[in-house]
Amino acid sequence: MHFITESRLDDGILEREFTLGDIPGILWTPPSAPAPLILLGHPGGLRQMYPRLAARARRSAADGFAAATIELPGSGDRPRSADADQARADLRRAMAAGEPVDEIVDRLVLPLVERAVPEWRTALDALLALPEIRGPVAYSGGVIAIGVRLALVEPRIVAAGLFAGSFVPRVMFDEARQVTTPLHVLLQWDDEGNDRQLALDLFDAFGSREKTLQANLGGHTGVPQFAGEDAARFFVRHLNDRSALPPG
Amino acid sequence: MHFITESRLDDGILEREFTLGDIPGILWTPPSAPAPLILLGHPGGLRQMYPRLAARARRSAADGFAAATIELPGSGDRPRSADADQARADLRRAMAAGEPVDEIVDRLVLPLVERAVPEWRTALDALLALPEIRGPVAYSGGVIAIGVRLALVEPRIVAAGLFAGSFVPRVMFDEARQVTTPLHVLLQWDDEGNDRQLALDLFDAFGSREKTLQANLGGHTGVPQFAGEDAARFFVRHLNDRSALPPG
Repeated sequence: MHFITESRLDDGILEREFTLGDIPGILWTPPSAPAPLILLGHPGGLRQMYPRLAARARRSAADGFAAATIELPGSGDRPRSADADQARADLRRAMAAGEPVDEIVDRLVLPLVERAVPEWRTALDALLALPEIRGPVAYSGGVIAIGVRLALVEPRIVAAGLFAGSFVPRVMFDEARQVTTPLHVLLQWDDEGNDRQLALDLFDAFGSREKTLQANLGGHTGVPQFAGEDAARFFVRHLNDRSALPPG
Repeated sequence: MHFITESRLDDGILEREFTLGDIPGILWTPPSAPAPLILLGHPGGLRQMYPRLAARARRSAADGFAAATIELPGSGDRPRSADADQARADLRRAMAAGEPVDEIVDRLVLPLVERAVPEWRTALDALLALPEIRGPVAYSGGVIAIGVRLALVEPRIVAAGLFAGSFVPRVMFDEARQVTTPLHVLLQWDDEGNDRQLALDLFDAFGSREKTLQANLGGHTGVPQFAGEDAARFFVRHLNDRSALPPG
């Protein structure tokens, strides 16, 4: 992990861009470091996503948490995948035509999960080696299929706030059933690019003993401010309850 | 409205039992009165419900709100209804046998709504005439069908926190579509005596521009503490935003 830029935001937050091999990322640490960590998931494209990611990081810092994110495979400045681009085009076309999308979703999302999850875990290794990060760790955001897989395979993640705003391959429902991590799932009730029933089925499938679904009126980008605040309190509840990392 | 008992709880909350004609009720006012008001809905039986109602009233008082409740028709010390008792027995039998319940729910809930809603409105008239109540007013709790009708017909109610824990006659979905009051709906995902799909359909039907569904794992009485806190913040958002009653 190499830090390439460093800037001090208001409220004393330190924002640093880094590279991890060829993966770009950003780390925000609050003045109160060493701090627990929230991994900020997103749909890819750090540059376009920066304003929203920085806003989420500021909220995390206000609660005393560091936040970090990395670019997804095939997004932003990383080499594109011809297969993923094809699948994305096919998905758009199928949705516009009202055709079934299951096979296309499998083609688009499964390889992404396979590539992204080990990268997130490598980033987590590097982040937890920094003196200003002490854990515990939570995952927050979309691509929800990545969140499902991470929650299942990564015991260092003690809570996951998932945004039900993208498709989940049906084969991953079996993984969801094995997840025991406490979950807070946000669903935009009128998300035009999302399958509401699939999101409800996925919430039902999760094996976690603590799981909350919060659905709000509005489209994909219309998450109301109070929903963000409720999600933040979910992280406070789970990240402040523990002073050390769980075994893993 | 005649006050018949008066006691001072810890934190300076004044608890008074009252009668309104032949309807018993309870009013809790915080030291900060005059205060906004939350009407506490419940499934009937003030005596058995008292501990949970008092806990909700304490939470309301901590946020600076008065709280009030009245006994439902046919419950507690009020004259029983042979028709309702019959419908309740039929409902239990049909549910145990896995038979359809729509006709029974209509028979049980519609007359209850017809009788209870005017009583709640009369209580609201009397409560708002007290110097220690200034409005605005919210409704909180179950019988969700009563909450739907109240939200529709009572313009003085500016927000409703509904507990999706009882059946709603299908004919009331048309009323739900006309509701514009901001809503916070709690759903216990594994509520054994409730129809989850009906609750989701009802949430979908509401015409309100601000509506939130919060679903948590667990049965009818297993609402987690944090869910109560999220609901409380919904009321704070809506009752503290206004300093006067809306026209009505």
